Amino acid sequence: MIPEAPAYWPDPAALADAVALRDRGAIAAALNLLDDRRQEARVRASVLMNRLAARPSSGAHVIGITGPPGSGKSSLSSALIGVWREAGRTVGVLAVDPSSPRTGGALLGDRIRMLRPDDDAVFIRSLASRGELGGLSPEAGPMSLVMLAAFDVVVVETVGIGQSEVDVAELADTTCCVVQPASGDAVQFLKSGIMEVPDLFVVSKADLGVLAERTARELKGAIPRKPEGEWAANVTLVSATTGTGVAELARGFDAHRAWLDAGGQLGDRRRRHQARWILKRLREEFGVHGIERLGGGDGLIKELLRERVPPLTRHEELRKRILSLYGSPEGERT
Amino acid sequence: MIPEAPAYWPDPAALADAVALRDRGAIAAALNLLDDRRQEARVRASVLMNRLAARPSSGAHVIGITGPPGSGKSSLSSALIGVWREAGRTVGVLAVDPSSPRTGGALLGDRIRMLRPDDDAVFIRSLASRGELGGLSPEAGPMSLVMLAAFDVVVVETVGIGQSEVDVAELADTTCCVVQPASGDAVQFLKSGIMEVPDLFVVSKADLGVLAERTARELKGAIPRKPEGEWAANVTLVSATTGTGVAELARGFDAHRAWLDAGGQLGDRRRRHQARWILKRLREEFGVHGIERLGGGDGLIKELLRERVPPLTRHEELRKRILSLYGSPEGERT
Repeated sequence: MIPEAPAYWPDPAALADAVALRDRGAIAAALNLLDDRRQEARVRASVLMNRLAARPSSGAHVIGITGPPGSGKSSLSSALIGVWREAGRTVGVLAVDPSSPRTGGALLGDRIRMLRPDDDAVFIRSLASRGELGGLSPEAGPMSLVMLAAFDVVVVETVGIGQSEVDVAELADTTCCVVQPASGDAVQFLKSGIMEVPDLFVVSKADLGVLAERTARELKGAIPRKPEGEWAANVTLVSATTGTGVAELARGFDAHRAWLDAGGQLGDRRRRHQARWILKRLREEFGVHGIERLGGGDGLIKELLRERVPPLTRHEELRKRILSLYGSPEGERT
Repeated sequence: MIPEAPAYWPDPAALADAVALRDRGAIAAALNLLDDRRQEARVRASVLMNRLAARPSSGAHVIGITGPPGSGKSSLSSALIGVWREAGRTVGVLAVDPSSPRTGGALLGDRIRMLRPDDDAVFIRSLASRGELGGLSPEAGPMSLVMLAAFDVVVVETVGIGQSEVDVAELADTTCCVVQPASGDAVQFLKSGIMEVPDLFVVSKADLGVLAERTARELKGAIPRKPEGEWAANVTLVSATTGTGVAELARGFDAHRAWLDAGGQLGDRRRRHQARWILKRLREEFGVHGIERLGGGDGLIKELLRERVPPLTRHEELRKRILSLYGSPEGERT
């Protein structure tokens, strides 16, 4: 049963159908719905997501682009959009801006809107990072699924290094890390922990010549060797200014997606991401203790991977199970 | 009552006294104790912290240093340690390395140990960031309090931008953000959200001349104006290579601490940090739902600010209160 909601709220099933037809108003409304934590919004979001999940998979690709501030992610995204549009592909962008509520932010969005004011096959939404500066809000996962239903390519762009890589890799099919030339310590940093997370590396500002090439060499040296048959991350030199390397990078994304598909890993990866999303949301609401009451995170992930229940619905069920363990009246309702 | 613990564990009160005498083994043991989440360790840590809190305040200063990878934080810390040691001050450093469990990390620690192998007035501990890459683990707060009892200056150094600034500002008396020259987008980024967090800014690599000066000018332009009597962040140009600006920066830290002290804000700031630490720990264990069961975060912070109970003890009490609301047997025990 869908709880009472303001009369102007659209029917979630109709909204899902309009999203799949790339109706811009519907996409915006769907993203707003996912951002709304009230009970009636959550139930509607669940209906929306189930309807979208029931559609045949569109072959779309979710690409995470991350890297430190100043590394040139926004220019790179703009250049990539150019390449994809020329190939006739539609593009949705979720740009996570580390913006205070005061200043708003949305640098990428503004920039691309200026470049392509009339192209309605490109849709950009800025997501504030809501107190998780540099990190990704839990809504980003379902939002990328909504965009996946509407666009051929979905880019999730986040500023930061460290936590951001990890967050993005938990929702993207393919993760790309942008490094700027001559940031030797950045290479040190990459070496030390997250070198294994990205599927592709980009050295931006390739027009800097020798500096960029040296950084690319250092990165290549730091990439862990992989056994035959596994994906080996590569490094592409890209200049958003001159356009060098942008088409090559776009081909690299396609190659990674094809590799995922061939090995049957794409579906596995998406299911794993959804299971981890459920866990993340539950942990946010109920903490480590709540997860333990459900038998612990590892067991829960295994249980979730065995089934095919859409994530918002499953999250709501598990929420109620914890609430009922805590003796809360909300947990007893069905 | 202190629960059973391995016989080789030191008595926490004796440990506290040895920490205050700057016994290196005791400091290391105390930090390990805070890193241990078992029940018996938590109770001992609580005894340790209460004993340390009961000592007269030493006038020590907790300084947070943060900034993006490659900005020169480690070199800056090394240079600052030189200045402080010449002035006869002892220095403890907590370096949060974004390191995987595999590679270990500890770049800063290694570097400074190489520089000052025999100086026992300098103590460095590397803290892995434990799945909060770029963020600060909740143990960093109590660990900085342990170091505060032993050293004149305590530096907490973290890599990252965004979340790291915010995390460090929640445990440091003074927060300093390091920016490297010619990272124009970094300035954009700073402008967009966290410009109000740091008490001091450093432009590193001042030997880069014009580039560094331009970055300093941009930063100065982005600092929000403050009413008379409030602290206005300033920008220091520093070169760890030539030593330029390091002594000036050290004086800047002293000036900020003196300003905090004169207005009676130092104690307030530390109490606020401790209250927020309690909230953070509870949220980690029990989520937003647990905090709501205690009446919500805002009310809890207000309640905590009115009292003077040491944070580990208070945290344990509130934990038990939530557990008892959930009907857990652990909550009923005293």
